[in-house]
Amino acid sequence: MGVGLLGGSIGLAVKAAGIECRVIGYGHRRATLDSALEMGVIDEAREKPEDAVVDSDWVILCTPVGLFEALLKQIAPALAPGTIVTDVGSTKRSVVTIAESALQQSAHFVGSHPMAGSEKRGVEFARADLFKGARCILTPTAQTDPAALRSVDEFWQALGMRTVQLMPDDHDRLVCDISHLPHSVAAALVAMQQDEALALAGGGFLDTTRVAGGDGGLWRDILLDNRDNVAASLKRFRGELDELLGMLQPDQGERLRQWLDAAAQRRAHLLATKLKELHPE
Amino acid sequence: MGVGLLGGSIGLAVKAAGIECRVIGYGHRRATLDSALEMGVIDEAREKPEDAVVDSDWVILCTPVGLFEALLKQIAPALAPGTIVTDVGSTKRSVVTIAESALQQSAHFVGSHPMAGSEKRGVEFARADLFKGARCILTPTAQTDPAALRSVDEFWQALGMRTVQLMPDDHDRLVCDISHLPHSVAAALVAMQQDEALALAGGGFLDTTRVAGGDGGLWRDILLDNRDNVAASLKRFRGELDELLGMLQPDQGERLRQWLDAAAQRRAHLLATKLKELHPE
Repeated sequence: MGVGLLGGSIGLAVKAAGIECRVIGYGHRRATLDSALEMGVIDEAREKPEDAVVDSDWVILCTPVGLFEALLKQIAPALAPGTIVTDVGSTKRSVVTIAESALQQSAHFVGSHPMAGSEKRGVEFARADLFKGARCILTPTAQTDPAALRSVDEFWQALGMRTVQLMPDDHDRLVCDISHLPHSVAAALVAMQQDEALALAGGGFLDTTRVAGGDGGLWRDILLDNRDNVAASLKRFRGELDELLGMLQPDQGERLRQWLDAAAQRRAHLLATKLKELHPE
Repeated sequence: MGVGLLGGSIGLAVKAAGIECRVIGYGHRRATLDSALEMGVIDEAREKPEDAVVDSDWVILCTPVGLFEALLKQIAPALAPGTIVTDVGSTKRSVVTIAESALQQSAHFVGSHPMAGSEKRGVEFARADLFKGARCILTPTAQTDPAALRSVDEFWQALGMRTVQLMPDDHDRLVCDISHLPHSVAAALVAMQQDEALALAGGGFLDTTRVAGGDGGLWRDILLDNRDNVAASLKRFRGELDELLGMLQPDQGERLRQWLDAAAQRRAHLLATKLKELHPE
């Protein structure tokens, strides 16, 4: 459901992984569905969500998080009992609560957050290898069906992902720090610039602000949905900037160097870990 | 003088541009000079700065900014009258003041800031095309010799750079916003993370923090040298984060979306401009 970058890439990745199935796409724009059919991203297109799920064993929600509630209410009556429903949403507390309440016993919901994507948007950027080596966080709760959890876990692994399980609360808090906060910071870095400074910007500035190229509507939904964590992260981050301000004194040079070196080393360690995950020997 | 990433790349770029000259490298580590000789980055190596400049028409300072003062005092007596001296330092007010006072009338100083490089360090990462299409800011003053300014301008252009002239004050203020501030912010983003969040970080986080991989000593020099501007930029940036905090309310969704979209569009425009500069039709 939702044939954009993520939904489209799932379609391609499922075929590339050799999973036997028919991929049915729902989208509210006919042109998108036609592109998706043409690209071989989906096998069938449906213009009503309830028509897309009626004969499905599996449903993956790939629309913006803000649309989940309405969509789940619309599809719930059409789902066969035992249907597995998962999603690709960047926040999990609200999604899991909404899904468990909307689906009740009729279907098995398992929250997923495949941490892959880019600032690009739309099915035309879909790639079969988008998920390879990246992490997928599953957020089961006490209500989650264990067999459904296993199936969803195996599904993302079949697409090449490294799965990990977290409570919805922990997911939203931790992902805020390493994704929602960096996005906010990158957008603020662009927003505060004067044109004459921006004219001098180079590759470093473009890299630092790459994530800020993401779609505003999508990110508004994420930031508002996770606003308590975003506010807490922003405040902690502001505290770190205050630390730095305190070190901008000639007699603090050694402390400043250590702070900068520690950040550089920590990032180098992270990069080495990620490269090893992506390209294991 | 200084055979690292920038000094080494200048050596390679000068040869690639077909400029007739002998490149003499000064460095305080023999191993670095030997690597530079082996890579063809320099034609001759000297272990004392005054020996490196004694027969030179041109001197380019490529050591960290913090070493400039001592270095300039050491080479000043050895420079032939009329020698052109420039640099690659990331700050310009202090550099220009120090250089003009240290060199007096004996040589012609022109401040340069070639905005190329990476978070990597060392001659082994030197590349002949490092400067191609990137910007170089020249910071002449009332004392600058016009012919020397022209020569330095033509030199960077011969290496493929797009030159622009700014007053040292304006340089330090504007470059702070698009380079020193993003570096500070990226380092703070790494520094404030908890290990359990960092374990979930992906490509977005690595891109946002790439510049924080730079050398701590080098960046300490830059941030301290430009500390008044860095503090002012950090405070303006903090104000932008406060704006964002105020928009994290459900009834501010439209304002938040516009703020995010404006940042995305501004960055997209910048990216398009830079790509056009790098690859003109």
